[in-house]
Amino acid sequence: MDQLDRLTLEEKASLLSGRDFSGTKAIDRVGITSIKLCDGPHGVRLQTEGGDHLGIGDSVPATCFPPAVAVGSSWNPQVAARLGAALGREARALGVSISLGPAMNIKRSPLCGRNFEYYSEDPHLTGILAAAHVRALQAEGVGASAKHFAANNQETDRMHVSAEVDERTLREIYLAAFERVVKEAQPATVMAAYNKINGVYATEHRWLLDDVLRTEWGFDGLVVSDWGAVSDRVAALQAGTDLQMPGTGGVDDAEIVQAVRDGRLDEALVDASARRVLRLVDRYAPGEADFDADAHHALARELAAECAVLLKNDRATLPVGADVRRIAVIGEFAATSRYQGGGSSHVHPTRVDSALEAIQALAKDRDRTVTYAPSLGEGAVEAARDADLAIVFAGLTEDEESEGFDRRHIDLPAEQIEVIRAVAAAAPRTAVVLSHGGVVTLEDWHDDVEAILDCWLLGQAGGGAIADLLFGVANPSGRLAETIPLRLEDHPVFVNFPGEAGKVLYGERVMVGYRYYETVGAPVRYPFGHGLSYTTFETSDLDVTVTGDDTAVVAVTVTNTGRRAGKHVVQVYIATKAGPVRRPARELRAFTKVALDPGESVRVELPLDRRAFAYYDVEDSRWAVAPGEYTVQIGESAARIVAERTITLAGESVARPLSRTSSVKDWFGHPTVGPLLMQELTANLTDEQKEQAEDYAHMLRMVESMPMKQFLGFAGLGLSDGTVDRLIELSERTSSGATG
Amino acid sequence: MDQLDRLTLEEKASLLSGRDFSGTKAIDRVGITSIKLCDGPHGVRLQTEGGDHLGIGDSVPATCFPPAVAVGSSWNPQVAARLGAALGREARALGVSISLGPAMNIKRSPLCGRNFEYYSEDPHLTGILAAAHVRALQAEGVGASAKHFAANNQETDRMHVSAEVDERTLREIYLAAFERVVKEAQPATVMAAYNKINGVYATEHRWLLDDVLRTEWGFDGLVVSDWGAVSDRVAALQAGTDLQMPGTGGVDDAEIVQAVRDGRLDEALVDASARRVLRLVDRYAPGEADFDADAHHALARELAAECAVLLKNDRATLPVGADVRRIAVIGEFAATSRYQGGGSSHVHPTRVDSALEAIQALAKDRDRTVTYAPSLGEGAVEAARDADLAIVFAGLTEDEESEGFDRRHIDLPAEQIEVIRAVAAAAPRTAVVLSHGGVVTLEDWHDDVEAILDCWLLGQAGGGAIADLLFGVANPSGRLAETIPLRLEDHPVFVNFPGEAGKVLYGERVMVGYRYYETVGAPVRYPFGHGLSYTTFETSDLDVTVTGDDTAVVAVTVTNTGRRAGKHVVQVYIATKAGPVRRPARELRAFTKVALDPGESVRVELPLDRRAFAYYDVEDSRWAVAPGEYTVQIGESAARIVAERTITLAGESVARPLSRTSSVKDWFGHPTVGPLLMQELTANLTDEQKEQAEDYAHMLRMVESMPMKQFLGFAGLGLSDGTVDRLIELSERTSSGATG
Repeated sequence: MDQLDRLTLEEKASLLSGRDFSGTKAIDRVGITSIKLCDGPHGVRLQTEGGDHLGIGDSVPATCFPPAVAVGSSWNPQVAARLGAALGREARALGVSISLGPAMNIKRSPLCGRNFEYYSEDPHLTGILAAAHVRALQAEGVGASAKHFAANNQETDRMHVSAEVDERTLREIYLAAFERVVKEAQPATVMAAYNKINGVYATEHRWLLDDVLRTEWGFDGLVVSDWGAVSDRVAALQAGTDLQMPGTGGVDDAEIVQAVRDGRLDEALVDASARRVLRLVDRYAPGEADFDADAHHALARELAAECAVLLKNDRATLPVGADVRRIAVIGEFAATSRYQGGGSSHVHPTRVDSALEAIQALAKDRDRTVTYAPSLGEGAVEAARDADLAIVFAGLTEDEESEGFDRRHIDLPAEQIEVIRAVAAAAPRTAVVLSHGGVVTLEDWHDDVEAILDCWLLGQAGGGAIADLLFGVANPSGRLAETIPLRLEDHPVFVNFPGEAGKVLYGERVMVGYRYYETVGAPVRYPFGHGLSYTTFETSDLDVTVTGDDTAVVAVTVTNTGRRAGKHVVQVYIATKAGPVRRPARELRAFTKVALDPGESVRVELPLDRRAFAYYDVEDSRWAVAPGEYTVQIGESAARIVAERTITLAGESVARPLSRTSSVKDWFGHPTVGPLLMQELTANLTDEQKEQAEDYAHMLRMVESMPMKQFLGFAGLGLSDGTVDRLIELSERTSSGATG
Repeated sequence: MDQLDRLTLEEKASLLSGRDFSGTKAIDRVGITSIKLCDGPHGVRLQTEGGDHLGIGDSVPATCFPPAVAVGSSWNPQVAARLGAALGREARALGVSISLGPAMNIKRSPLCGRNFEYYSEDPHLTGILAAAHVRALQAEGVGASAKHFAANNQETDRMHVSAEVDERTLREIYLAAFERVVKEAQPATVMAAYNKINGVYATEHRWLLDDVLRTEWGFDGLVVSDWGAVSDRVAALQAGTDLQMPGTGGVDDAEIVQAVRDGRLDEALVDASARRVLRLVDRYAPGEADFDADAHHALARELAAECAVLLKNDRATLPVGADVRRIAVIGEFAATSRYQGGGSSHVHPTRVDSALEAIQALAKDRDRTVTYAPSLGEGAVEAARDADLAIVFAGLTEDEESEGFDRRHIDLPAEQIEVIRAVAAAAPRTAVVLSHGGVVTLEDWHDDVEAILDCWLLGQAGGGAIADLLFGVANPSGRLAETIPLRLEDHPVFVNFPGEAGKVLYGERVMVGYRYYETVGAPVRYPFGHGLSYTTFETSDLDVTVTGDDTAVVAVTVTNTGRRAGKHVVQVYIATKAGPVRRPARELRAFTKVALDPGESVRVELPLDRRAFAYYDVEDSRWAVAPGEYTVQIGESAARIVAERTITLAGESVARPLSRTSSVKDWFGHPTVGPLLMQELTANLTDEQKEQAEDYAHMLRMVESMPMKQFLGFAGLGLSDGTVDRLIELSERTSSGATG
């Protein structure tokens, strides 16, 4: 017997909202228990009893792993997976059934206050990492929540703003990573976002939740609202939002009951959503588990070391060399780590590494001296002057970036710039270690320093990881998951962020991040995909094999040509002008990270599936691969292509049936109909008119956009209705047949 | 008795489409005559009998005045007016009742094939010039046609494409010039464009034609379709398209009749449109007139000289100095003038000046020798080497730009660049004279030459005008009406032009042309408003007086500090961050051109009306002036501000009534309600909670976008429904009261 049959309508409705801030409702009468859904993506955030109602208060200690901004820079699904698995173990140990992550929105603007929770400006990279996280997390018996679905790309006005975004852009940029996660990892839940999309709240967006997520992608899990995101409970339920969080003291449950009684809401929808809640409760009932906090801290340190990006390393300044005897460590972040962002993802860490202490420990082992000055007033310049190497810790404070609001600029605080410049002027060599969630401009001081290690936010063990990287215990292998621009104003989203009058126009369409910079050839400070190593790699023997009408395999050999073990990221981009839509200059379509000892080589083979070549065709509502040339490029970054091969794909015809409203250009350009039409027309021409054929072609060019109907009347061509009908029929027979 | 009462339904319907390509239908039975509507904006284009049906064939000779691209650069409404008046006289003399112009679309992209027919990238400049043209033309008894209404900013797919543009952008950029023309000059007709706007054909766009054009702006003239722009005749009539051109042999007239008989169309609409046709025929019946072709040619030369823009003039290369004895004239355009664009505006000129002949004539008077070489192969370099000054004529050929298609790049032909560079390398000094309709990049050769005179397209007397300018008979006074970018890719529209899948997104919104470049601080080759003179001007004593809540007067003194008579353009920009919408860095809000003898001064006073400070508020459907600071700037160009004063305007309150769905930020930020709400809340706080006030403020920031309704339930604030109602009422009493 279906458990649902034993419940009253009121009981079923009650299941569709939370008991409190994080729990589902139990129904003791029939033995339905409650499960907990807790933040967050990089550490369990289980609120302590008596916490505040906004969910921002204190929580139970748990390991704070590297936030997604760091994981994104790892370019390594193994990092995401190991993090996900550890997170799953902790969640289980703390009695949490659903871990509210991964957060996987695209970094549309550098200003988004929550960018530290997101992976990348690129949907392929985001999707691969998020899917790895979900699979590993769920393998531990804890459900994931892919969030925030969808187009939740800013904090400003996030609970009202409508993301005005066309379907191709949605599909190719903002939905693509969710699509991959759903299809490849089947997350237990998807979280419907706060914002509207083209005027409709995500929680009430039937096309999004039902047509796309459930029907097209085959999602069979539960849709949970973001916390407080439900505006109209009945509309949200009808659109596919199963579980409203948190509860509203029964008010919305009663609305559901009333709507069913009034006949406004089909009880079958209540049943379907209640059944999904029950299945979730059943599948993710809390079990016994524990975790080793020390081991997880060590894991957090290992993972963190793989996320930092070595942006610059002139004069082989890093790692700390044999010639460096005295090290000056400068900046408060060295002692007081900046390692996570503010808001609902905030984790109460089991402990926090101090980079300074970790540096002191490693320096001691190596017989170096370390002096520390937190700021200029306390002697930073003096310390730098007396040292062989100055290491400045700089970045953004937690106050400057958080969930809930967006930044207004991408500058480092002026006083930190002052420290960097003063130290750089005094020290023989200067390395800067950056900690921050959102991208910052480096322009005021970039050329003054020898090395920059961009750590983003590395979690509670980041301090130790930084020391490992500085001393070469670990070799940097992170790559930028987002472009570092020269100026905020260079960014394509600058003029359209954060919107006005309740709307934000995604005017740049698919030209997000590097897609824009590479397409328009605008200079940036460091491109997407950039990152240095303490060793060197060489890429050779690129080979691309076409394996079908719209698939290929790319193979390349990578060799570690330096003297240290290290990891290299093979980045595969595709560039094409095929098809009727504007394509970005290149797009990341495959990548892998390989670990190589000095002198070691490896042959890497990566398949390129149909989607690697496709664009979303909004007229035919499908992914299409146009016939034509595609250049497969191996990049050290999105801006630096080191090898490429051009292949030709058969693709599929994109010819559409003609009609009387199709344009003159479409008619004359149709592969089958065009030549016949020209024949018909020239048959009717006088000799004199034939002589004017060249003028005629020029005229045609002028009216090429005219609908055939108007053109036929207008130009007095004397084509019979029957002939036109016959040609239309012909075009229908020879079209792609995939319209609709 | 109403003339209409004597007509049958069929006869009335017949009046609503053309008899042929340019004439309305006569109804002899009741003495209704036919009138002719002919292109174009800068010269009468009356097709000869037996011309082709596309209207691209031969026409009766008429003066080809400077096209709008040149008139735009004059920054002088007197130029537009004198052109309009002369055009009116010619139209009357040729029996043309309606002159199909001015063409006044905004130059959204440099690629638009028809930019040569349009004035500017700025709506204020466009509106002032177009209104002057219309007033002068109509004073001669010939009706104007403000076209192409609206958002017809490209040729690609122009008969299908939908301009996807938000209302604020439409109002502030794409409709503003039309609004001015309608309100200030009442054109006899407005021409509905080919394209769609937000999915609806302009000819069927009731909001555009009826709500905005007729009701809001008070247009009482006739709406004529662009030629072949009607897709659905009945829908077009219902929306407000009175006259369909050309006719379709009675097919569409019959559709109208049938629709009335079926009850699908109100006959009153047929009557209203027919009455507008009759009124037009009546008012603009052809009369007797003639024109003096010689006088008009001389006028065309005088006007043309005021339109050219002297971009660069190093080493006082121009005008031809006393030290220049030998002049080398190079390039085919010197002998064969490039002076107008292709398409429906193409005029059969009464004669065409050759710049070469005009130069030879002026040189002879001044005892200089002139050699001429059309190209490199015929001795350009040798001629340049032997001369004191080389003058290279370069530009775009007519094939490269025309109505009907857009350009794909903004480069000069490679062979012309080669000529310029070779000549510049050989000659002691080089001046380049450019002729082209759409903007071209100068980057490949700009630094190689001393002087650049940008002539755009100057009409049939352009050759003479160019000679006058080169020799100083005329003093250049043109200013750029559009930005000359460094690269096409720098342009904000680059990624969204010409659209795809039937739509073109106006993703840059109001950031068109200089509004974009100045807002993001992107470098350009020459900014909007730039232009040199052979004399110098000084601007002093800027004074700005606030004259009301939302109006001001700006006064400034201009002095000719050089040694030649000349004209200077006073450009007034306004910069503000007031109000809730994103404003461009600055916007042109007033300008005037003054003629000054050497040493002469003039005090210029320009009023700044409410609209000069307003933005379009889409939520309240009105133009709003926000309270705040406004900086009034005097610019030599949009990029070079030479004086500014900041004023404070009272404006009007933009506070809106609160509701339960208003955001937490709106509630706490409301000037009256916010403080009361905070009082209520803190009254309920425990002492401990009060101590946490700072944390509380931080929390508020995180949830500032939450609707009050959710916040109240969510945070358990214990605010009674009655209190909330009372605060909402209060907000209604203290709001702007102008919601709509």
